[in-house]
Amino acid sequence: MELSAKEVANILGGIVEGDEHIKLNTLAKIEEGGTGTLSFLANPKYEPFLYTTQASAVIVNKSLKLNKEVSTTLIRVDDAYASFTLLLEKFANGNQQLNGIEKTAVVAESSVLGANVYVGAHAYIASKTKIGNNSKIHPQVYIGENVSIGENCVLFPGVKVYHGCQIGNNCIIHSGTIIGSDGFGFAPLADGTYKKIPQTGIVTINDNVEIGSNCTIDRATLGSTTINKGVKIDNLVQIAHNVEIGENTVIAAQSGVAGSTKIGKNCVLGGQVGIAGHLVIADFSQFGAQTGVASSIKESNKKWNGTPYMEMRDNLKSQTIFRKLPDIFKRLEALEKLLSNK
Amino acid sequence: MELSAKEVANILGGIVEGDEHIKLNTLAKIEEGGTGTLSFLANPKYEPFLYTTQASAVIVNKSLKLNKEVSTTLIRVDDAYASFTLLLEKFANGNQQLNGIEKTAVVAESSVLGANVYVGAHAYIASKTKIGNNSKIHPQVYIGENVSIGENCVLFPGVKVYHGCQIGNNCIIHSGTIIGSDGFGFAPLADGTYKKIPQTGIVTINDNVEIGSNCTIDRATLGSTTINKGVKIDNLVQIAHNVEIGENTVIAAQSGVAGSTKIGKNCVLGGQVGIAGHLVIADFSQFGAQTGVASSIKESNKKWNGTPYMEMRDNLKSQTIFRKLPDIFKRLEALEKLLSNK
Amino acid sequence: MELSAKEVANILGGIVEGDEHIKLNTLAKIEEGGTGTLSFLANPKYEPFLYTTQASAVIVNKSLKLNKEVSTTLIRVDDAYASFTLLLEKFANGNQQLNGIEKTAVVAESSVLGANVYVGAHAYIASKTKIGNNSKIHPQVYIGENVSIGENCVLFPGVKVYHGCQIGNNCIIHSGTIIGSDGFGFAPLADGTYKKIPQTGIVTINDNVEIGSNCTIDRATLGSTTINKGVKIDNLVQIAHNVEIGENTVIAAQSGVAGSTKIGKNCVLGGQVGIAGHLVIADFSQFGAQTGVASSIKESNKKWNGTPYMEMRDNLKSQTIFRKLPDIFKRLEALEKLLSNK
Repeated sequence: MELSAKEVANILGGIVEGDEHIKLNTLAKIEEGGTGTLSFLANPKYEPFLYTTQASAVIVNKSLKLNKEVSTTLIRVDDAYASFTLLLEKFANGNQQLNGIEKTAVVAESSVLGANVYVGAHAYIASKTKIGNNSKIHPQVYIGENVSIGENCVLFPGVKVYHGCQIGNNCIIHSGTIIGSDGFGFAPLADGTYKKIPQTGIVTINDNVEIGSNCTIDRATLGSTTINKGVKIDNLVQIAHNVEIGENTVIAAQSGVAGSTKIGKNCVLGGQVGIAGHLVIADFSQFGAQTGVASSIKESNKKWNGTPYMEMRDNLKSQTIFRKLPDIFKRLEALEKLLSNK
Repeated sequence: MELSAKEVANILGGIVEGDEHIKLNTLAKIEEGGTGTLSFLANPKYEPFLYTTQASAVIVNKSLKLNKEVSTTLIRVDDAYASFTLLLEKFANGNQQLNGIEKTAVVAESSVLGANVYVGAHAYIASKTKIGNNSKIHPQVYIGENVSIGENCVLFPGVKVYHGCQIGNNCIIHSGTIIGSDGFGFAPLADGTYKKIPQTGIVTINDNVEIGSNCTIDRATLGSTTINKGVKIDNLVQIAHNVEIGENTVIAAQSGVAGSTKIGKNCVLGGQVGIAGHLVIADFSQFGAQTGVASSIKESNKKWNGTPYMEMRDNLKSQTIFRKLPDIFKRLEALEKLLSNK
Repeated sequence: MELSAKEVANILGGIVEGDEHIKLNTLAKIEEGGTGTLSFLANPKYEPFLYTTQASAVIVNKSLKLNKEVSTTLIRVDDAYASFTLLLEKFANGNQQLNGIEKTAVVAESSVLGANVYVGAHAYIASKTKIGNNSKIHPQVYIGENVSIGENCVLFPGVKVYHGCQIGNNCIIHSGTIIGSDGFGFAPLADGTYKKIPQTGIVTINDNVEIGSNCTIDRATLGSTTINKGVKIDNLVQIAHNVEIGENTVIAAQSGVAGSTKIGKNCVLGGQVGIAGHLVIADFSQFGAQTGVASSIKESNKKWNGTPYMEMRDNLKSQTIFRKLPDIFKRLEALEKLLSNK
């Protein structure tokens, strides 16, 4: 996408000071901008960069008073930060005008595609699948039988959705993520081998969910693994069979939730957190990175950390003493010696 | 798959009480069933649900005596649990009747495919590859040169198998898993850069192995990385070059085994376990979630936990004291003060 | 690749003792070799294997004196180890003579491909992409709009590169790795839901970088996530948005680096390490496996370990005392009792 400073000003209801024909094709931080980039100044702390920036244009507040001459073009608006955010969204969506079915995509006759659906090359859409209006299925995606995908979804290249899974509206799933692979269920036999327990359930993903790249979300043994609306999941996250993740819960990269655990709403999991199976985690729980959770949490709205997991402030106190353990041990031995000599 | 209650009863050698024409298309837990679902009652604890369930039909033992009227259709059998398991397998395998080579699949002329092999669209099968009878290669799978795959295997969409790797019979590999990428081997040079050490070995996967989605199993530098028969691996697991995993060992999600380590048979690794390189781990070892193993284990059949890893019961005791460290430190200081005042 | 002992000797400038016509098609360790394999003996410790090996031929130093008769063919060279390494590279590159665009690959007209470029079947190359001379794009790879890839790169099957990303020369990216998926950025709203912050930056990967399989490297919010030259990354590694990894840094499997962190040059991260966001890590820092780093590190060239992370030797000391905590607690209680009785 390329716009002139004048065109940007028109979108934002702003005024150009400088070269209104200058071409802008990238957004950048004011300290990193170069030719063709458009930046913004909202925080006064960054004002010194305004006089040295290489950005072709900078969005500033109408109220800003210059202390020196500037060489960049200014676009003055009522709220520089809000205006820049608006442009971010415009630029980000610039390449989403994808439509139609590309050659070599395989789309089963019995599938039902809504209006303005895109199906990229080398995508595979099996029978009895439904895809809602405006959803974009990128190249090399696989969608199994009887899958249902809502409106305005984006499945990036290489996503795989196994048969029977249900995805709501406005969901974004990034490349390499696998929805609906078999849960990890095996029955031990007397001879030491294991027998597979069939995984006949599905995965249900509700509206407004975003899932990062290379995640794995397993289908339920029976019933459904469920990701409730508004959940945001980062990359390389594992969600096991029959798990339920509550509304608006956020899960950072490389965390894992074991089978049949139910996490409440509006929780936050840091990176590399592990939550054991068959637990219930209260709403609004927060977990520091690498926390290992081995039992259910009944009180909502608390912060947890560490392995063994503890309330965060207590864990940090124990960590502080852990660092002193060699010293503590010496002091204990000194006391013992002192007393044995008495 | 859709069956009538009568058809299900015929499969199970059972008797219908109620509507023998009612249509059943999904399996569910008795407390979660709805229209069209078939459930079962084996554990007497769940009997109250029998009188309130929304399931269209429920499999029960012939010996069951009803305490109230039921609105659902009953299918009476000798062993309700065994019958339900049988149906689980029937339903799970329902969509595995895939056969033939789909259009757009690329299959090298020099490859040899057995009877009833399926090759999905956009799959790629390079030269000199052998695929045994009844194996199913789903869409978008890649199989490199000289790969050998046994009978009755399933490679789900998007699996990649690099050249030369060997896979036995009855193996299941889930979507996004990579078999045979290069081991992580680099020689440090004097100028601080690294030189790649060529990885010319292979991966060998023996019979009856199941591997979850988005795992990575690296090829050996020389020789073979080996997964022995009956091993079950969950999602997002890392197996480094030249590792050997013993028969019937089970590895939960997000665990990793570093290079050249040899894990014994019938071991169990919980989630997010890390095992360092060049170790030997005794048979029947068990590791709690997030355990970090930094040295070899010679005694078999023990349970380990924590970082540093310890025998599980000892680690749990140390964890209990860890929680009290701030209190312990205060008590130590109090003793010191007391003694210095004497 | 198959060579006779004579042909191998010619490549290495060596002399054959034994059957110069014997066929060699695999490289192996001397203790593992079988028919058709070529091995080497450099470390005198392994000399006993020379007299029992099943390898068809063994590369040895010219200076080696035999203590017994050997049944294998010898190829005598000046430096057996260096010669074997040379062959390893020859064998490893044997199947890299891929060229041209395979049928069913989709290559946009506006893309520019250099000489000797390979584009495998079912690969997708979007518009305005540049690919340098001798780069090999394997089957099922996706390359988005405006991506630039340098010379002599290898992208293995199934790699996905989102729009706008930049990859230098001599880079290797293994299967399933995702370059340029959206950073994990969401603004919390008053009602508990989250609003996506558009991620309009890119990923820049400089020369001589190798990245393992199923990694995720997110695009920047603004500007670029940057992997500097010579970096080596193992499998299943997460690099978040706006991270910078310094030259020649090595990152082992399943480690993760959170957003906006800047890691110095020539660092080494063990497996499953987690580094929090917005930190700066000094050059030449080394981290043991599973280390959790929660604050910036200013001193370069130190070794760190544990959670909380500490200098490695101190952490190992604290770990030793951690194992004794139950005993320490008893001894503390004994002292308290003793003193309260006085």
